[in-house]
Amino acid sequence: MATSIDLLKEKGRRLRIHSLRSTTAAGSGHPSSCLSAADLVSVIFFREMRYDPSDPHNVENDRFILSKGHAAPLLYAAYAEAAIIEQSQLITLRRLDSDLEGHPTPRLPWVEVATGSLGQGLSAGLGTALAGRMSNLTYDTYVLLGDGECAEGAVWEAAALASYYQVSNLYAIVDVNGLGQSQHTMHRFDVENFAQKFRAFGWHAITVDGHNYSEIIDAFARCRREAGSRPRVIVARTFKGKGVSLLENMEGWHGKPVPKQELDKALAELSQPYTSHGFRPNPRPRPERGVRPLNVDIRISRKIGDSVATREAYGDALVKLVEKNDWIVALDGDTKNSTYSEKLLKTRPERFFEMFIAEQNMVGVAAGMAARGMIPFVSTFAAFLTRAFDQIRMAGVSRANIKFCGSHAGVSIGEDGPSQMGLEDLAIFRTVPGSVVLYPSDGVSTERLVAEAARIRAICYIRTTRPKTSVLYANDEQFPIGGSKILRRSEEDQVTVIGAGITVHEALKAAETLASEGIRIRVIDAYSVKPVDRTTIMASAKETGNLIVVEDHYEEGGLGDAVLNAVGNAAHLIKLAVREIPRSGPPEALLDIYGISSKRIVQAVKGLL
Amino acid sequence: MATSIDLLKEKGRRLRIHSLRSTTAAGSGHPSSCLSAADLVSVIFFREMRYDPSDPHNVENDRFILSKGHAAPLLYAAYAEAAIIEQSQLITLRRLDSDLEGHPTPRLPWVEVATGSLGQGLSAGLGTALAGRMSNLTYDTYVLLGDGECAEGAVWEAAALASYYQVSNLYAIVDVNGLGQSQHTMHRFDVENFAQKFRAFGWHAITVDGHNYSEIIDAFARCRREAGSRPRVIVARTFKGKGVSLLENMEGWHGKPVPKQELDKALAELSQPYTSHGFRPNPRPRPERGVRPLNVDIRISRKIGDSVATREAYGDALVKLVEKNDWIVALDGDTKNSTYSEKLLKTRPERFFEMFIAEQNMVGVAAGMAARGMIPFVSTFAAFLTRAFDQIRMAGVSRANIKFCGSHAGVSIGEDGPSQMGLEDLAIFRTVPGSVVLYPSDGVSTERLVAEAARIRAICYIRTTRPKTSVLYANDEQFPIGGSKILRRSEEDQVTVIGAGITVHEALKAAETLASEGIRIRVIDAYSVKPVDRTTIMASAKETGNLIVVEDHYEEGGLGDAVLNAVGNAAHLIKLAVREIPRSGPPEALLDIYGISSKRIVQAVKGLL
Repeated sequence: MATSIDLLKEKGRRLRIHSLRSTTAAGSGHPSSCLSAADLVSVIFFREMRYDPSDPHNVENDRFILSKGHAAPLLYAAYAEAAIIEQSQLITLRRLDSDLEGHPTPRLPWVEVATGSLGQGLSAGLGTALAGRMSNLTYDTYVLLGDGECAEGAVWEAAALASYYQVSNLYAIVDVNGLGQSQHTMHRFDVENFAQKFRAFGWHAITVDGHNYSEIIDAFARCRREAGSRPRVIVARTFKGKGVSLLENMEGWHGKPVPKQELDKALAELSQPYTSHGFRPNPRPRPERGVRPLNVDIRISRKIGDSVATREAYGDALVKLVEKNDWIVALDGDTKNSTYSEKLLKTRPERFFEMFIAEQNMVGVAAGMAARGMIPFVSTFAAFLTRAFDQIRMAGVSRANIKFCGSHAGVSIGEDGPSQMGLEDLAIFRTVPGSVVLYPSDGVSTERLVAEAARIRAICYIRTTRPKTSVLYANDEQFPIGGSKILRRSEEDQVTVIGAGITVHEALKAAETLASEGIRIRVIDAYSVKPVDRTTIMASAKETGNLIVVEDHYEEGGLGDAVLNAVGNAAHLIKLAVREIPRSGPPEALLDIYGISSKRIVQAVKGLL
Repeated sequence: MATSIDLLKEKGRRLRIHSLRSTTAAGSGHPSSCLSAADLVSVIFFREMRYDPSDPHNVENDRFILSKGHAAPLLYAAYAEAAIIEQSQLITLRRLDSDLEGHPTPRLPWVEVATGSLGQGLSAGLGTALAGRMSNLTYDTYVLLGDGECAEGAVWEAAALASYYQVSNLYAIVDVNGLGQSQHTMHRFDVENFAQKFRAFGWHAITVDGHNYSEIIDAFARCRREAGSRPRVIVARTFKGKGVSLLENMEGWHGKPVPKQELDKALAELSQPYTSHGFRPNPRPRPERGVRPLNVDIRISRKIGDSVATREAYGDALVKLVEKNDWIVALDGDTKNSTYSEKLLKTRPERFFEMFIAEQNMVGVAAGMAARGMIPFVSTFAAFLTRAFDQIRMAGVSRANIKFCGSHAGVSIGEDGPSQMGLEDLAIFRTVPGSVVLYPSDGVSTERLVAEAARIRAICYIRTTRPKTSVLYANDEQFPIGGSKILRRSEEDQVTVIGAGITVHEALKAAETLASEGIRIRVIDAYSVKPVDRTTIMASAKETGNLIVVEDHYEEGGLGDAVLNAVGNAAHLIKLAVREIPRSGPPEALLDIYGISSKRIVQAVKGLL
């Protein structure tokens, strides 16, 4: 039995009261942004959505994502009114000891992804929607967006892809209150403008008065009736601060709570209850689901000395992993024939998603899929992952179990030039707390490390190389995260050279050249950039003294800094890295010009003796 | 006199021949992506655009931006056919000793901004268009986009803003060849789909057959006649590889040159000249322009001990700089009341641009403005600059003279929580070769450093703080880039504590506490994070031994790593930095929990004694 309008109005009234009280108590927050959306959220939470308030782990619960994360107090109020949390908790908003943070994070089990960096929620919602369809689940996903954040391109990346994949279990609701943080929004109250944009992007769009319950209810009904295979959006004209004259449609109140002394006056305007009837949830039954043991034991059959690009080995490993774990999926931004994620498309097309050239949305979707228990492998050129750093950063806050693969790392790609060279990717991924950063040098270590990345529950980055490199390791060699491999060692080693990926091969060449002159060096393959193998490196430093780190990355934030932080002042360290904007040219020439070729390693070693 | 269609066809034919020859000679490149756009480029370069081929510095030259940067050989061919470069140069494509790089960079004076990371050209074009209007110049800007890159949200960020600002001197041309790198594009040949999207975003859109010269010419004529104040877009249906049967509309040819042995056969299909008439450019006269001496001597009047937020001082300095240099402009993403860039809006509204919540476009526009001689100051929360890292990276390749300001840095923002905390911004900006990274601690140093940023021709990043901090410096104090300030020094200093921004004040508090216990420490304000003041730091290290670096940033890539790289193994160094995902809470509590408060500094110092 559908909830009565009176009850929805009552819920809306209480959502407003909670939002005002909690933000005034906290002394900060965005109550006016809560009040504009209170009526929309009332209908979504207490009429449209189906979920079991007592069971956040019911996989058939409808999902709600608050893309306008600054309206967090409204979300928490809805949780309280749905009896998901205690009403008494609301007053702890923004406190150090409370999980009701200033912007939502998955510290609360009902929060799918962290929001607060605007324009990311629709991508995450697209991810949960696709995940549901992939798992043959019937739940819907609801995403509440602000009008201001619709200026973010990522919203339109998500909009385009959602219609391309005919994601009909996705509902976007745009709260058009016309006011941004610092002034009116680009389109003020022009809801038709938003509707036209969404229609042009293939959505079924309906405009409503966001404070008129029958209109909102009718809009959802019409979506279900009329939208067919299209994603659905309700564009709602609202007023910021609606219901409290002090705030209603006033500029200058963004992110400001009602002062304590004005609170009673504000609440008095909301003091008339509509009804006392309670809310009855209407959950779907929780399906029986067996546990899914992850199996990452893959067979590798390569011959030492054979040539294979690590990017190609990445594709091989993906295929093997999905064979055994079909909740692993791959996403790629129209580079699948370069990253070799296309190998999965060829064997398991239903586990591969072409995301087209829209990296921000690709990562946002992956976060949504990860929230639903999938393990997404996201690949593109390493350089283009910089495009999605904000989404990667927020995936960190969400503790999303996403695996990234950046191909075409460094100057070794050659003639395509600097725009295509990933030279800051290690720096990006190392900043994410708890992240794992892997940089294999050959086909065997790549396959093992892709499997290790799938095994560990953390944001992982795998860096692959464009040119072919020779296989260095036996097929049964193990590559634990945090480890490294000593490839050349003797009692007479005078220097330790630490490389990863392409520079491991340069270091080995340098070792041969030097050996022919009677100079012995130790060569370490630091395939685990984060965590880095401090034990092995310190031991070698003690035995050989000087360290040389060589990497196909800018000098800041890469392997060199990882090693430098590990050894501190315990050893003298020289970093060989790219120190200027590179140019087009043959790979070997570029490695040499930018100081990371075998020749330059030889020079550096001799300079130390 | 307008160029004849026969001459345009002849130019198109020659553009194709050059594109095929140069890529085959280079052994790599994207000829098929050149051939789809050859006829469009012929009309743009040899009929529509007005420029003086002999004078790249004529400010009234129309501007052309190749957003689909992989079609660089086509651009170079057009330069050659316009006599901007020698035809003999074309064969040097992608060579180490050639400025004809795999993707265009400003090593060539006619290239406004580096392209090759897709979806950025329209923003840059919007920037040059706005710059022209601001300078009362009459030139137009033409941007050639691929259809695949229109999946990038940044394209729609630019589209929305261009119509909002009624930028009628901007022409976008979309080359809809239906094929991406790895498969067909999202919308294949559906040019009407693109036109509808652009119309929904406020553009005047016309669809054409991109190989029909009369249609293309007529489309430009109609744009000039009908578009009024709207930006204009011509959506052209084309075929990848048009004109060469081996490539035409074939999948699997993206980024592949015609093999040497097939080249003659391919060229034979293009062997019939249409006419022999030459091209006569129609440049606008070059206006007389006096030199504009930059004047960054600003008067500061603050009282030591007063409280002011560095973000507010940023706004004060902006106002003073624009008073004396009116080609300095400010851009902000709806945070101007937080970054205080709104101070400029209030005094010089025509030098301030509200870019709304679209950071990627904001940075792309700044790159375009910088290419036209403006000095753009781009501000938003430090955290949200991660959103534009790809544009920042490409601005580095463009050597664009942009100044960035990130406010609300670190956990010291408090209750808003991790999504709003800039904790990886120093890591981002330090990776950009040649960049300058500044982190002032008080109002005086902020104003001086904003002026220093304007003075130096480099990408600069200025990090500001949310809470108020007390003024530490006299108004006439100088803050040279690469310098630092010793704030506490004695003969008995046992440790040197290096901070920047908020942590300078924590270090000073720690010094007082320790002094009361008879322990002396040296305190350094490392306001210049890159380049860092190695001399002063090394000297202090020699005198005091141990170093402690404390920063409100993640442990990777920030001030700690800058100092660590400067001292190497010359001193024992301890880094105090944020090492996990923070949560909401009061600023002081967060500084303490995450290990960077005065109390934690005191503990660290004692731990070393």
